[in-house]
Amino acid sequence: MWGIIATWRMAVEGITKADEMLKEGADAGDAIETAIKEVEDFPYYKSVGYGGLPNEEMEVELDAAYMDGDTLDIGAVAAIKDYANPISIARRLSHEKVNCMLVGEGAEKFAHKEGFERKNMLTDRAKIHYRNRVKEVQQQEIKPYSGHDTVGMVCLDTHGKMTAATSTSGLFMKKKGRVGDSPISGSGFYVDSKVGGASATGLGEDLMKGCISYEIVRLMKEGMHPQEACETAVNKLDEELKERRGKAGDLSLIAMNNKGEWGVATNIEGFSFAIATENEKPIVYLTKNVDGKCIHEVASQEWLDNYMKTRTAPLEEK
Amino acid sequence: MWGIIATWRMAVEGITKADEMLKEGADAGDAIETAIKEVEDFPYYKSVGYGGLPNEEMEVELDAAYMDGDTLDIGAVAAIKDYANPISIARRLSHEKVNCMLVGEGAEKFAHKEGFERKNMLTDRAKIHYRNRVKEVQQQEIKPYSGHDTVGMVCLDTHGKMTAATSTSGLFMKKKGRVGDSPISGSGFYVDSKVGGASATGLGEDLMKGCISYEIVRLMKEGMHPQEACETAVNKLDEELKERRGKAGDLSLIAMNNKGEWGVATNIEGFSFAIATENEKPIVYLTKNVDGKCIHEVASQEWLDNYMKTRTAPLEEK
Repeated sequence: MWGIIATWRMAVEGITKADEMLKEGADAGDAIETAIKEVEDFPYYKSVGYGGLPNEEMEVELDAAYMDGDTLDIGAVAAIKDYANPISIARRLSHEKVNCMLVGEGAEKFAHKEGFERKNMLTDRAKIHYRNRVKEVQQQEIKPYSGHDTVGMVCLDTHGKMTAATSTSGLFMKKKGRVGDSPISGSGFYVDSKVGGASATGLGEDLMKGCISYEIVRLMKEGMHPQEACETAVNKLDEELKERRGKAGDLSLIAMNNKGEWGVATNIEGFSFAIATENEKPIVYLTKNVDGKCIHEVASQEWLDNYMKTRTAPLEEK
Repeated sequence: MWGIIATWRMAVEGITKADEMLKEGADAGDAIETAIKEVEDFPYYKSVGYGGLPNEEMEVELDAAYMDGDTLDIGAVAAIKDYANPISIARRLSHEKVNCMLVGEGAEKFAHKEGFERKNMLTDRAKIHYRNRVKEVQQQEIKPYSGHDTVGMVCLDTHGKMTAATSTSGLFMKKKGRVGDSPISGSGFYVDSKVGGASATGLGEDLMKGCISYEIVRLMKEGMHPQEACETAVNKLDEELKERRGKAGDLSLIAMNNKGEWGVATNIEGFSFAIATENEKPIVYLTKNVDGKCIHEVASQEWLDNYMKTRTAPLEEK
């Protein structure tokens, strides 16, 4: 068996490449890195890699993480600027014994010494989004917008090895140096080849309050199917947050176990995800939470066409 | 009931102050911040705050976190330089809705705008340690030393509110930008006033592999006494790491539940911790793991005298 599951429609081209590799017996580390890089490199996705939206100082600061489910090796970068593929730097760091999570200038120095590709990640399109946003809020305090579209993936290869990985530019208009859940072990991602893995997207500040990726893997270890584990963890955290804070931020989770079974849960409308396994060609689903159960529907061709049209539409400066 | 528990002997002066406050009905947030600041301010502790040992570029980069067990608010800073009390900045960030974890230059900008005290945290003594270390390893590659002495605390106040907090300068000779478990939710700390809290010290890169503070709180929620929860989690992670990686880094954990019961477990020799509750005056214990059970002994006056003598002994430049 092999398989890969990922947050959001934007991941489908990446997982299609990964699926081709996995079919041929590729390593889950190579497959997931290839898939994440595909998303990082595509300039029209506003929340990951090149073309990601900047922080309040108009800098694109990126977070990424990689975890090996065999060894539990973790590598992560946060608030790193001007590198093309944060996921590759994170994976490289996972091979170190210590200094596996690096942030800011320190992460950039490491990446430079290791020869990773420099790239100005701020696109003209992202600058227009920034300037438009500044104009929109000129009379108000600048606040982050509600798009929290981290790409997060879990992968299983034919050798039984599992990996998890994330990459994001974080909240649009975030404060310089802000780190969400994506590079945080147990919150943004977790994987154990003996059990399975999970990854999150949504409001990082709230996802961290429940260590929700770790919790989902734990529930799978207790014997839950990934779907039940995702729903249980998402519904519980959503409920706890509402009880204590009056509201819960966006929480969307994907998971796969080491048999290639998968699950997805969310507390928002219209969460999309992408999946490919030995039994299932690369496909995009939409899901919604109806009374605690998440109902997945295959995305229609109309929805898919419209998605790409919206992403690549000409952008007017206001 | 009230109580506070902390990693290492270095915390005893801080928790003594906190104990006085808690007795008078103080808030667990105020008490724990006071206790951590006491450790940060003391120049002879080499692994926390002022006097903390520098990274490989001879800069003192600090990590800290604060969590409120009522609201699950989390604030954290990582790789921050030149501020006197990282814990206070972390606590301040916990009141934000987003941007609650800031790293590097972004964290410093925030702290500056909020008026936190600037301080060059690199002491003459730390410089001597640095230069001595450089000389020692002139023929070899520089490697971090094995002292991973984060101060981590869990606090319960008379109103039933619980908090957790950490502060550290991280590994001596770490790479610039390196972040360990201390500011990472679920790894370095976790607290839920409905259950209890936990905090970790040891090798951050390994502690993160098990989300161990979250796991201990979860085990307490299932009904385990804090001592059993700590031993179960530490022994399990130690075993998993040895099985998969041949060895496990240092793992030392403290925990307290919302009845003021506490527990401690470690996989090393000579882990010290400090505790004060309504029933117990501030006291230092030493513990060791004997076949999976951790045996705590009150530290002797000789051990305590020797501890401070060693810390404050004149330091010769080699």
